[in-house]
Amino acid sequence: MQISTREKIIELLTEAGDGFVSGETLAKKLNCSRAAVWKHMEELRKEGFELEAVRKKGYRIKGTGDKVTKNEIRYGLGTKRLARNIHYRETIDSTQRLAHQLVQEGCPDGTLVIAEQQTGGRGRLRRSWYSPKYTGIWMSIVLRPDLPPQMAPPFTLIAAVAVAQAIEETAGIVPEIKWPNDLLIGGKKCAGILTELEADTDRIQAVITGIGINVNETDFPDPLKSIATSLSLASGKKVKRALLIQRILEKLEKYEEIYLQNGFAPLKILWESYANVAGKKITAHTLKGDISGSAVGITDDGVLQLEGEDGQMHAIYSADIEIER
Amino acid sequence: MQISTREKIIELLTEAGDGFVSGETLAKKLNCSRAAVWKHMEELRKEGFELEAVRKKGYRIKGTGDKVTKNEIRYGLGTKRLARNIHYRETIDSTQRLAHQLVQEGCPDGTLVIAEQQTGGRGRLRRSWYSPKYTGIWMSIVLRPDLPPQMAPPFTLIAAVAVAQAIEETAGIVPEIKWPNDLLIGGKKCAGILTELEADTDRIQAVITGIGINVNETDFPDPLKSIATSLSLASGKKVKRALLIQRILEKLEKYEEIYLQNGFAPLKILWESYANVAGKKITAHTLKGDISGSAVGITDDGVLQLEGEDGQMHAIYSADIEIER
Repeated sequence: MQISTREKIIELLTEAGDGFVSGETLAKKLNCSRAAVWKHMEELRKEGFELEAVRKKGYRIKGTGDKVTKNEIRYGLGTKRLARNIHYRETIDSTQRLAHQLVQEGCPDGTLVIAEQQTGGRGRLRRSWYSPKYTGIWMSIVLRPDLPPQMAPPFTLIAAVAVAQAIEETAGIVPEIKWPNDLLIGGKKCAGILTELEADTDRIQAVITGIGINVNETDFPDPLKSIATSLSLASGKKVKRALLIQRILEKLEKYEEIYLQNGFAPLKILWESYANVAGKKITAHTLKGDISGSAVGITDDGVLQLEGEDGQMHAIYSADIEIER
Repeated sequence: MQISTREKIIELLTEAGDGFVSGETLAKKLNCSRAAVWKHMEELRKEGFELEAVRKKGYRIKGTGDKVTKNEIRYGLGTKRLARNIHYRETIDSTQRLAHQLVQEGCPDGTLVIAEQQTGGRGRLRRSWYSPKYTGIWMSIVLRPDLPPQMAPPFTLIAAVAVAQAIEETAGIVPEIKWPNDLLIGGKKCAGILTELEADTDRIQAVITGIGINVNETDFPDPLKSIATSLSLASGKKVKRALLIQRILEKLEKYEEIYLQNGFAPLKILWESYANVAGKKITAHTLKGDISGSAVGITDDGVLQLEGEDGQMHAIYSADIEIER
């Protein structure tokens, strides 16, 4: 992987911690002029880094602003494979659309597409997804596991666990997972996951996981007001998006590895600790009609088991779930 | 569907058969000037249509040249759903790549991408595919069946049958199908099929079937010479590409409908009549290693059954097959 000069600067300043690094030292290590160092610093400031410059001492990092640029995400990221390749956009139609294009162009495993805003964000069944600028997380992650297509369904559940845990750690609130792909706080949606495949008939080429999270929105337009919330509205404080993204990527990488080695069963317990349907009366709206009954739980393959009112057991692969409260 | 003026002209001339249609009649029906009609005729000539213009009689179609433009393919096409939407390019990197992009943009079921030449044509496992200008058929068809991803494997076999039959009818030679995705004449490859998916985890969004056929090539570059042939080299005559394409599309549409209604079993017999492996000693080179033994046949799901030298039965989902002769 090629490291840019700016990434190298972040690395050097990070290594120095609270200490200063002189412009001279930076210029020497980067093999450039001090004027060039200064220019890079200006660019990093524009990307949201709070850089302190003190005469005769040099530079140090004070903190990062709330943008989700490449450097913001890389600075402090503890992954081995995920997001080593990042495509960042201020505005995009849909991060899923670009991720599919990158897959066609042969992008590596772990590629991340992230945008400050989506103008055509979408969820399951091509429903639109509200994605305003700078307040939420709108990203798509390309994984390239060597698996047959029928092994793909648990990826949605694995991503849901990674997002739920990361929210818990960074925002201090515990979201509920609504099978298969929504996260709720107080019954309102705060995040959604969209897992799509590109595949040969017998082999996955790429799992493209889209993750949308309402983070720092303070309000929602009318049709969404009653059904959507943000982490900020729920917790009463602003959440640093880059930090939340890093925790998600780290957990997703770890849980994908567990899945590839041991299957979904060991992750099921974790998933169940966030899930809200088991034992509840629900109606599953599927593409082939509605089924009402009692949610028993999910199988080791991630399929929802529903005991119908007729006493029959139904295996639900995908549906909109309505929980009777 | 919107019909262009040029398509309307083709329709009117086709209806007239061997008869002439006057410029005046055309102008009236198309609601344009006779000069405009003449201009359209010139454009159609450039696309390869042989149009006869006789003073005081009008225009008629004599035949079409060997190009594979939209009009060439539509003129005489007997499909209901396939290729009602055609994307034609003189040169393209890969028709599969554009088809994937169109799927992301929401293109309809049956969309056809076709090019006179591919500069980055590819086969299974991203192997390159030689696709010179004007001599072969390089196309991708987007189907949007409502099926789970595990129902996708037979699409390769269905396409292979459609291509084999269409070759038999238009070139008068019977190719052999080499499981899973190659067509051979005299042991040399004349066509290949690449089936790819875009899908939600539980539902196919699109089956993208790439078909490459060596049609009128008179020679191949050195590394291919010993393993590739064309329909023209094998039959000793030129084959009209647009005609072959039409027959493929018609058969593919029919066989897809049979598959959706009755599964692969009724198509298996047809497939077997072209297949060359049953009963033969083969080695299957899979991504996980080689297996040698006797090919028993394929299952109703399109999986190759191989009786290993150890007497064990192996189910092969994908492989390069080497036949011992």
